[in-house]
Amino acid sequence: MPSASASRKSQEKPREIMDAAEDYAKERYGVSSMIQSQEKPDRVLVRVSDLTVHKADEVVWVRARIHTSRAKGKQCFLVLRQQQFNVQALVAVGDHASKQMVKFAANINKESIVDVEGVVRKVNQKIGSCTQQDVELHIQKIYVISLAEPRLPLQLDDAVRPEVEGEEEGRATVNQDTRLDNRVIDLRTSTSQAVFRLQSGICHLFRETLINKGFVEIQTPKIISAASEGGANVFTVSYFKNNAYLAQSPQLYKQMCICADFEKVFCIGPVFRAEDSNTHRHLTEFVGLDIEMAFNYHYHEVVEEIADTLVQIFKGLQKRFQTEIQTVNKQFPCEPFKFLEPTLRLEYCEALAMLREAGIEMGDEEDLSTPNEKLLGRLVKEKYDTDFYILDKYPLAVRPFYTMPDPRNPRQSNSYDMFMRGEEILSGAQRIHDPQLLTERALHHGIDLEKIKAYIEFLPLWSPSSCWRRHWAGTSDDAVFGIAQCSSDLNVPP
Amino acid sequence: MPSASASRKSQEKPREIMDAAEDYAKERYGVSSMIQSQEKPDRVLVRVSDLTVHKADEVVWVRARIHTSRAKGKQCFLVLRQQQFNVQALVAVGDHASKQMVKFAANINKESIVDVEGVVRKVNQKIGSCTQQDVELHIQKIYVISLAEPRLPLQLDDAVRPEVEGEEEGRATVNQDTRLDNRVIDLRTSTSQAVFRLQSGICHLFRETLINKGFVEIQTPKIISAASEGGANVFTVSYFKNNAYLAQSPQLYKQMCICADFEKVFCIGPVFRAEDSNTHRHLTEFVGLDIEMAFNYHYHEVVEEIADTLVQIFKGLQKRFQTEIQTVNKQFPCEPFKFLEPTLRLEYCEALAMLREAGIEMGDEEDLSTPNEKLLGRLVKEKYDTDFYILDKYPLAVRPFYTMPDPRNPRQSNSYDMFMRGEEILSGAQRIHDPQLLTERALHHGIDLEKIKAYIEFLPLWSPSSCWRRHWAGTSDDAVFGIAQCSSDLNVPP
Repeated sequence: MPSASASRKSQEKPREIMDAAEDYAKERYGVSSMIQSQEKPDRVLVRVSDLTVHKADEVVWVRARIHTSRAKGKQCFLVLRQQQFNVQALVAVGDHASKQMVKFAANINKESIVDVEGVVRKVNQKIGSCTQQDVELHIQKIYVISLAEPRLPLQLDDAVRPEVEGEEEGRATVNQDTRLDNRVIDLRTSTSQAVFRLQSGICHLFRETLINKGFVEIQTPKIISAASEGGANVFTVSYFKNNAYLAQSPQLYKQMCICADFEKVFCIGPVFRAEDSNTHRHLTEFVGLDIEMAFNYHYHEVVEEIADTLVQIFKGLQKRFQTEIQTVNKQFPCEPFKFLEPTLRLEYCEALAMLREAGIEMGDEEDLSTPNEKLLGRLVKEKYDTDFYILDKYPLAVRPFYTMPDPRNPRQSNSYDMFMRGEEILSGAQRIHDPQLLTERALHHGIDLEKIKAYIEFLPLWSPSSCWRRHWAGTSDDAVFGIAQCSSDLNVPP
Repeated sequence: MPSASASRKSQEKPREIMDAAEDYAKERYGVSSMIQSQEKPDRVLVRVSDLTVHKADEVVWVRARIHTSRAKGKQCFLVLRQQQFNVQALVAVGDHASKQMVKFAANINKESIVDVEGVVRKVNQKIGSCTQQDVELHIQKIYVISLAEPRLPLQLDDAVRPEVEGEEEGRATVNQDTRLDNRVIDLRTSTSQAVFRLQSGICHLFRETLINKGFVEIQTPKIISAASEGGANVFTVSYFKNNAYLAQSPQLYKQMCICADFEKVFCIGPVFRAEDSNTHRHLTEFVGLDIEMAFNYHYHEVVEEIADTLVQIFKGLQKRFQTEIQTVNKQFPCEPFKFLEPTLRLEYCEALAMLREAGIEMGDEEDLSTPNEKLLGRLVKEKYDTDFYILDKYPLAVRPFYTMPDPRNPRQSNSYDMFMRGEEILSGAQRIHDPQLLTERALHHGIDLEKIKAYIEFLPLWSPSSCWRRHWAGTSDDAVFGIAQCSSDLNVPP
């Protein structure tokens, strides 16, 4: 069992305590000197999550934050927190602790980091307020490793309270400005910890699934010499004596990789859009998850590959991240996410019929408005019991000029969006790879051919038979879990 | 077995061939119409890499590029290529092919994509020039899916020739400008295909190892409101009516995550440096692999974790990417990469002694020049037989002000670099987390306290006991394999 290192001397104690000469426990508490990699002690620090009945009656060392403390006569109850786990601890006047030591422990500011030595004791009644419900820690030594400020700008318990409790029961919640101004504290909440783990998990599952399918991950440049998707909404960078631009999409590089025979590539990285709008769907910077894939005969080969990738992510999250999903649900209650296998694929005309039946007036070649997308999401959920579906065969008129027309119906196109809970999370299409058809379509859209010359010339030289495009404009976690949280979450807007 | 689809009609043929009325094979070749997702044929396309003796005498369909073609009397030999694999194919006048068909096949431009139906035949003598050495394909049908230009700006065989053969034997090689101007073709070489797969593999192994160690992957913002590492070498972005900056490092965000109790985080993403230098170690944009980790007592806890991560990457590459390593070695011959377990850790003073013994004059607190780093790499290789080592305890004078001094020796610091083949690939240190010491060190370096006020204030409020920093300035593949190739390889400088 680890023992207190003799060199870990207390540095400073409140004067009143130092004055009391008869403190028999004075070596058992204090503020540690700065950790400067002076020594490599053998002491083993036990994780809070490992404090269970299996460790009953063992003496352990734990490093954790003081989540709450409550003095009560000759004893003090602490809740010690480590990431999303916490345990109740107790310092009581007795053989190991003097009354000065109990007072010292009670006065440590919340959020301070402490090293404690204690005995793990099984409790008779479950401790409902802690994740470690079956044990508590009887503290024998306590040293402050990092002292927090006495007044914190927000309380963690307030920051995880569901909005509804704040509104209906008048209990304290924390507003967004306070959270963003004190991001480091807000990120310590169990909800934030879970959201970040889910984000990491989504990227991991996306990559894992695609690598198993034979995709190659690529990194694409972000500083580029010309605006990638037309000139609008592009950020300009001063590049020595010239100007450069921030990539609005990895599109062109993905296509180059397909022309270079990689067949299947993907990338995860920042995307920049100079959109001066204040909605959760218009961000100046977000993390895009992008795929590009050559197909042999039909773009549905690609649609199926993507839908399966998303299904693998949904399943992986439900299987490996159940704790995190439940943690988020405590603060943001929502129904479990439903999906079908294989994924539901609706054609645009079918969706129109459903909307018209629900009383919406829409033209055959009209795009979906945001409210109609949301309504459609509800109609699909009622009819098919799924929160995820593919909407295929968009009207040609509402898609960009480079979208391949549907050979069966020239007013439709080989393009699709995918929806989660009524929000578009992904847009894709077969791209025109034939220079003649591309020129025709560009002229039809009134596009200056001179401006897309390089792009058109690039096609006949080396293009593969067919290449396909999709761009996932955002990440899925907000849609999956209904949290107004995006993946470039640490963003600090200027 | 797949059969020719009736609707895949030939669209156009050279006039001379069309005129010849007696072509009995005219349905067996031609140029396919544009693939527009018209149909979903049942035809199975076999991968070139799967054409082995196990498929002998089977009739298969293959989609591949024409790598080379050579007509010889009544027959034509083709080499069909798919990514890094190729196979010999033959069209000969006979039951399935007319002389017009052979001529048609012989005239298809190199790099065109074709669909061929053929019988797999075992060969008696290995075909040394192809990856599929034991079989050839006897073509019965051939259709052009995508026709390449007749003249290509570079030949793939020239592009994979080792420099030494170009210099000593006067054979054609391809210069860098031609490669970059025609990147899509250059990327089709077996070497480029392997380099990109290795890059993807390195990121995958890095992530896999760290996730197994309990790290969380984070995404950090790239557009930031203030220069992240001092004002020098930062790119300015026009941000609506203001200016913003491109992040020179994810450093601050990583530290925030540690203060937010994530304990171990990593990120892979673009890093921007406005360095107007033309060396392979000064790039305006590169992909950084970053770790941040809290430790308990000694920064060597972190050093060991990183060294092990690198060793796992080396082993993973040797185990899973042997084909790719050998492919790159054909063009860029080099010795196998050597490393020790556990990794060699030298202290700076030991390295100085080795350099002095080799005749170099250096002061105790002098930094290593690039030539001395390279020399040290050779000396370490000779003495310890390793291409990878840690150099620990750099002089305090040559490290940034926020580096923790060594408590045993105030002229040294708790900082280190890691080297591969004599090049620094990684730099790390324990950061000072004590505001008083940080202020002292900043004043010693003549830094304006006002400018780092926010940073200093950020520490006492919520900092953990100790946090650690490293930044991997570049990826390791160039160092591992000696290729002058960096990970933001697709970068198109303005």
